[in-house]
Amino acid sequence: MTSPAPATRAYRRLSVEERRAQLLAAALRLFAHHPPEEVSLDDVAEAAGVSRPLVYRYFPGGKQQLYESALRSAADELEECFAVPSEGSPTARLGLVLDRYLLFVDEHDAGFSALLRGGSVAETSRTTAIVDEVRRAAAEQILVHLGVPEPEPRLRMLVRTWIAAVEAASLIWLDEGKQPPAPTLRDWLVDQLIALLTATAATDAETRTAMAGLASLEHPDGPVSRLARAVSPLLRELPGACGTE
Amino acid sequence: MTSPAPATRAYRRLSVEERRAQLLAAALRLFAHHPPEEVSLDDVAEAAGVSRPLVYRYFPGGKQQLYESALRSAADELEECFAVPSEGSPTARLGLVLDRYLLFVDEHDAGFSALLRGGSVAETSRTTAIVDEVRRAAAEQILVHLGVPEPEPRLRMLVRTWIAAVEAASLIWLDEGKQPPAPTLRDWLVDQLIALLTATAATDAETRTAMAGLASLEHPDGPVSRLARAVSPLLRELPGACGTE
Repeated sequence: MTSPAPATRAYRRLSVEERRAQLLAAALRLFAHHPPEEVSLDDVAEAAGVSRPLVYRYFPGGKQQLYESALRSAADELEECFAVPSEGSPTARLGLVLDRYLLFVDEHDAGFSALLRGGSVAETSRTTAIVDEVRRAAAEQILVHLGVPEPEPRLRMLVRTWIAAVEAASLIWLDEGKQPPAPTLRDWLVDQLIALLTATAATDAETRTAMAGLASLEHPDGPVSRLARAVSPLLRELPGACGTE
Repeated sequence: MTSPAPATRAYRRLSVEERRAQLLAAALRLFAHHPPEEVSLDDVAEAAGVSRPLVYRYFPGGKQQLYESALRSAADELEECFAVPSEGSPTARLGLVLDRYLLFVDEHDAGFSALLRGGSVAETSRTTAIVDEVRRAAAEQILVHLGVPEPEPRLRMLVRTWIAAVEAASLIWLDEGKQPPAPTLRDWLVDQLIALLTATAATDAETRTAMAGLASLEHPDGPVSRLARAVSPLLRELPGACGTE
């Protein structure tokens, strides 16, 4: 307020689109690291180095519109993380996606946590729809890499429940001060999907076929075989486990 | 409104506590089968056969207070479902808890779905805290039956992620018209926990000990051994799986 002239000049340097992007970036940085309740429109204005009325000019819906726009932008970024080339072993691809996902979680910690825990005043049917869209995109990508883009209900349910488990693990990971280290968590989450696929393959033909296809693309020293080797002796120790084969 | 005298007499038949319980029961029935947005105070009054002002006398906070009270009551009911005697095989106990849980989900379908999907105007930090309390109670019960009431972070995270997977599976189950049948879903969810425990036992000593303790209480024809027998041939087909043992 003490130097309106330079501020006005600064505003003019950016085009409408650039200014909008700048405000959105400032909002996203704030919403990434604070629950929406703790972020005010003044904070966004200050972070972007502009006045509150200017923020309103670009986002007439105020904080809620900024929050939803920032969420939309973060969701697009996250969905892009899911796309990996269909080459290399499926677990290597999955590991790459999880690395990117955990980096995203790390970089949006408090905002990610507030969003997925629910109960925030900023949460609406629109924000819920965006989160669901990201979950669906993740499920679709995994099914593509499993070679079953149009699966039966069981395999689809398996992938969607694993995604819910990954989300829950991410929230706990944030609560635990980002422990264990991200690569350890990633490997464990990969193991979890392999375990779920294997257990489901025992009773579901489609999953058995998908699992066989996946295994054929895996390295003999890759996660699938490593887990199978580690688990086999445990299975043999079970009462009645070896008797009937 | 046409016959106030009999209605007034009817009010008098119930004590304050009875009337409160009756209104709460009516609210719970409505919130169980409809998203909170679709339930009005008038609906509750009509379902309980009382006037709207009478509902306000007992619940001055109106619909939101009724919703939170109904949720509190449903949460208490659900937490009671988790308590099973520490006898019989652990998977039989888990199956019993899941049967009760899926019955609860079945009986509160639309309300359960609206609550856990988020984005409802009735969702507040208080309702979120109640849901989290139920999740914690579920995790604690499972850990008691695993014989590890105070686990290391990994095993705790495993149980909590499995609970998230169960929730996600329940929501999908409701979306899919409650298919597969509840007993099939229950068995699959038990298999999932066994699979997750087994995979985690491969790299985590505490989980290995818990798994061994659990297995020793299992019937040789129970779910653990049945799954192990079904999975073992699949593991042997994996590239490199058998070579090194």
